[in-house]
Amino acid sequence: MTGVPTTSADDASTTRKRPGGRSARVGAAVLDATLEILSEGGLSSLTVDEVAERADVHKTTIYRRWRSREGLVVAALESQSTDNVPVPDTGSLRDDVAAIARSVAANLSSPLGRALAQTIVGHGDDPEIDRITEEFWTSRFDRTAVVVERAIERDELPEGTDPRLVIEAVVAVVWFRSIATRAPVDDALVDTVVDVVLGGFSRRPEPSWGSGGQH
Amino acid sequence: MTGVPTTSADDASTTRKRPGGRSARVGAAVLDATLEILSEGGLSSLTVDEVAERADVHKTTIYRRWRSREGLVVAALESQSTDNVPVPDTGSLRDDVAAIARSVAANLSSPLGRALAQTIVGHGDDPEIDRITEEFWTSRFDRTAVVVERAIERDELPEGTDPRLVIEAVVAVVWFRSIATRAPVDDALVDTVVDVVLGGFSRRPEPSWGSGGQH
Repeated sequence: MTGVPTTSADDASTTRKRPGGRSARVGAAVLDATLEILSEGGLSSLTVDEVAERADVHKTTIYRRWRSREGLVVAALESQSTDNVPVPDTGSLRDDVAAIARSVAANLSSPLGRALAQTIVGHGDDPEIDRITEEFWTSRFDRTAVVVERAIERDELPEGTDPRLVIEAVVAVVWFRSIATRAPVDDALVDTVVDVVLGGFSRRPEPSWGSGGQH
Repeated sequence: MTGVPTTSADDASTTRKRPGGRSARVGAAVLDATLEILSEGGLSSLTVDEVAERADVHKTTIYRRWRSREGLVVAALESQSTDNVPVPDTGSLRDDVAAIARSVAANLSSPLGRALAQTIVGHGDDPEIDRITEEFWTSRFDRTAVVVERAIERDELPEGTDPRLVIEAVVAVVWFRSIATRAPVDDALVDTVVDVVLGGFSRRPEPSWGSGGQH
């Protein structure tokens, strides 16, 4: 939007015809429909037919892009997480990890984020859900690993620290409170957990924690 | 069992008539039936009528003892946890916390423990489930607090350490892996998480963890 009035219908139709634009809109509509159905009825009730109907696209379009119901669900969960739990780069490990924890807490207290989490965790054991969760979480932790890698470069954490476990140890408490105990997750809790976990990792791999830090 | 053969039927009938014995058997039957129904169909399908029928007791017996459906469910969950996640007293904080984490992991990979956890976490938000989970977790963490209190007395942790948060920070990772990411929880993972969390708490309340421990 430049503020210059368009004088010809060509501009609009050009925009509409642009493949990336249309493709992006179709993608967003399909993923939104998938999330909506997931949050309403869980994974077992989700069919590609219903997603296609709600998103008003042909189901071959869905299969062409996401291959399977499983691929579609993983993509939808990833897009929701990427939008709601961005990867921060504040220049400080402490602030980055706290920002991730706060985003996760906010996401798990939003109606959609909460419904999706309950769908995933409340689902019985079956190979498809196992593959979906594995793929989803691997992708999530791969994205946040950079926060820990940057901290190692800045000498905030020892070389060889497991990037996934640092984020996981903090995020797990947020999840556990939000989903299992349903106890409050406030800023003070996040700060304490971040201090404890980063404090613990900064001392690793020195295991006899009773006798002073390594730094 | 002393190995001495009983010669009279009186012994057996005395045992059967003992009020504590009968009451304990009825209690166990009711709690087992409750757990069975919970693990099959979740909380929403559980009625006191069905529990009474399965346990073969009158429902007034259930209401007299547990007051409500809610009280019954909390009692059943507590009994299952108490049986499967005992409170250790090894003389070492590290070993106590690792033992709790391993029991929780084993419980969450048993069919009943897993089904119960999925029932609780997968359940939508309503005031009854909020009360049940709050009561259940408060009772659980009250029980395990002694592990941390003993460690403070032994000078393994600083005075004023929050007993719930120490256990929670370790157990949360076990829960998160077992229920959310479905990634393996093995002994190595438990050891690492226990080291990190206890290492972090042993340095608290000194928050600038980058510059060496307090001990």
